[in-house]
Amino acid sequence: MTGFAAATAVRRAEGGGLTADLEPGWDVGGTVLNGGYLLAVVARAAVLDSPHPHPVVVSASYLRATGPGTVSLHVTPGPAGRTLAHSAVALTAADGPTLTAQVTTAALDDAPPVYSRPMPEMPAVADCVAPTSGSPDVGIRHQVDTRLDPATIGWAVGRPSGEPVIRAWVRLADGSEPDPFSLLLFADVLPPTSWSIGLMGWAPTVQLQVLVRALPAPGWCLVEATASEAAGGWIDEECRVWDSTGRLVAQSRQLARLPR
Amino acid sequence: MTGFAAATAVRRAEGGGLTADLEPGWDVGGTVLNGGYLLAVVARAAVLDSPHPHPVVVSASYLRATGPGTVSLHVTPGPAGRTLAHSAVALTAADGPTLTAQVTTAALDDAPPVYSRPMPEMPAVADCVAPTSGSPDVGIRHQVDTRLDPATIGWAVGRPSGEPVIRAWVRLADGSEPDPFSLLLFADVLPPTSWSIGLMGWAPTVQLQVLVRALPAPGWCLVEATASEAAGGWIDEECRVWDSTGRLVAQSRQLARLPR
Repeated sequence: MTGFAAATAVRRAEGGGLTADLEPGWDVGGTVLNGGYLLAVVARAAVLDSPHPHPVVVSASYLRATGPGTVSLHVTPGPAGRTLAHSAVALTAADGPTLTAQVTTAALDDAPPVYSRPMPEMPAVADCVAPTSGSPDVGIRHQVDTRLDPATIGWAVGRPSGEPVIRAWVRLADGSEPDPFSLLLFADVLPPTSWSIGLMGWAPTVQLQVLVRALPAPGWCLVEATASEAAGGWIDEECRVWDSTGRLVAQSRQLARLPR
Repeated sequence: MTGFAAATAVRRAEGGGLTADLEPGWDVGGTVLNGGYLLAVVARAAVLDSPHPHPVVVSASYLRATGPGTVSLHVTPGPAGRTLAHSAVALTAADGPTLTAQVTTAALDDAPPVYSRPMPEMPAVADCVAPTSGSPDVGIRHQVDTRLDPATIGWAVGRPSGEPVIRAWVRLADGSEPDPFSLLLFADVLPPTSWSIGLMGWAPTVQLQVLVRALPAPGWCLVEATASEAAGGWIDEECRVWDSTGRLVAQSRQLARLPR
């Protein structure tokens, strides 16, 4: 297994439950693991206990920060039909439950869309910027090759644009091609859009819904993160993810706490 | 209690559980109740068992259609802190669970935003159109006064615009002012945006996340519903809701099945 597949693997434990070894190195700083990485683990657990192969919706409440180590995954199956199945997944670490999720599974394809909103304009990968400086201690940056649109990284040089938009090309650093599980990671992998409005610091996710829309083509994915409103200590963040053919393959929305 | 408050009321049952009498007349046709109406009921149950007064996130999986009648609501409390609390709510009808939700509660205010994306252009209420024709048998249209932007209702006269956007002013027909619970209703109350791309018919919600962002001012709310992609039997739908002062007060995103 490659890096991402191994780091998100879920196996049946003795006694019948599910377990995973969450790896250090998929963090957003310190021992706090990336929220999208956790969604991929949760989705693998849901799929193991589903008649359908792919996550199409994962909606997770982040109860507390999750660190590396062995966790258990408890899947409660809901109704399962020919088209889709529902389940609930709880991720429990040594100190108790840290994340609960609702997962819908189905079989995705890459059938052409009936309607599709176009992909935004984006410079070529070679004309974008790797976030090497400023975040050497953030593990996730080493797991996901990221090339930021220079128009959206004023915050990196102390000149936030004032518009909460960040765009980047992303792919797994282990060389594996995107799939529905890595799309869950990509939907929560960019720096917080709050940085673009000058609110530096960590913006912890409270609740995050990701929709996976199609099987992605090989190559780089484009992620665009935007926010609609920052107020009262809260900010929303929306991501859309397109594959290398310009096909929308995932969407997300989260509510996060604003850094003080 | 007014119509909406009474129709979404949750009370403690003998034995300690929670129960609600879902009213006919909040339907989307036949005996299928509106998804946003159900979210309001679920949020009232969560708030009853929370130290915090308002829903800020409700994310629900629609396991099967829910009809009118008495239902039980089972709240599983999660971590509760000074700022927010998490819980899970299951809504169970006579024939079993029909909806499960994750709810985050907190105390909302109307503090001015740090950043806010502007409200779209919208004709005045008097220049918009009541959906009197075409849907006389849809109960929810009698509960929520709706005034559609004429630019977004080509579908009503057999000329869908081809762009999945519908905008409308909405308010409760019972005369009560908007609150965080009615915002949950408003976030799922417009006709399906799929009608705007010529896909008439019912688009049942699979999973729906609503964020409530602020306490709404009195008066009409503006709802704008858009979609990004229709493909493989699925469509996403996003709603944003502004109050009468132009303040963003709620956002939603759902994945729905496309009508065949």
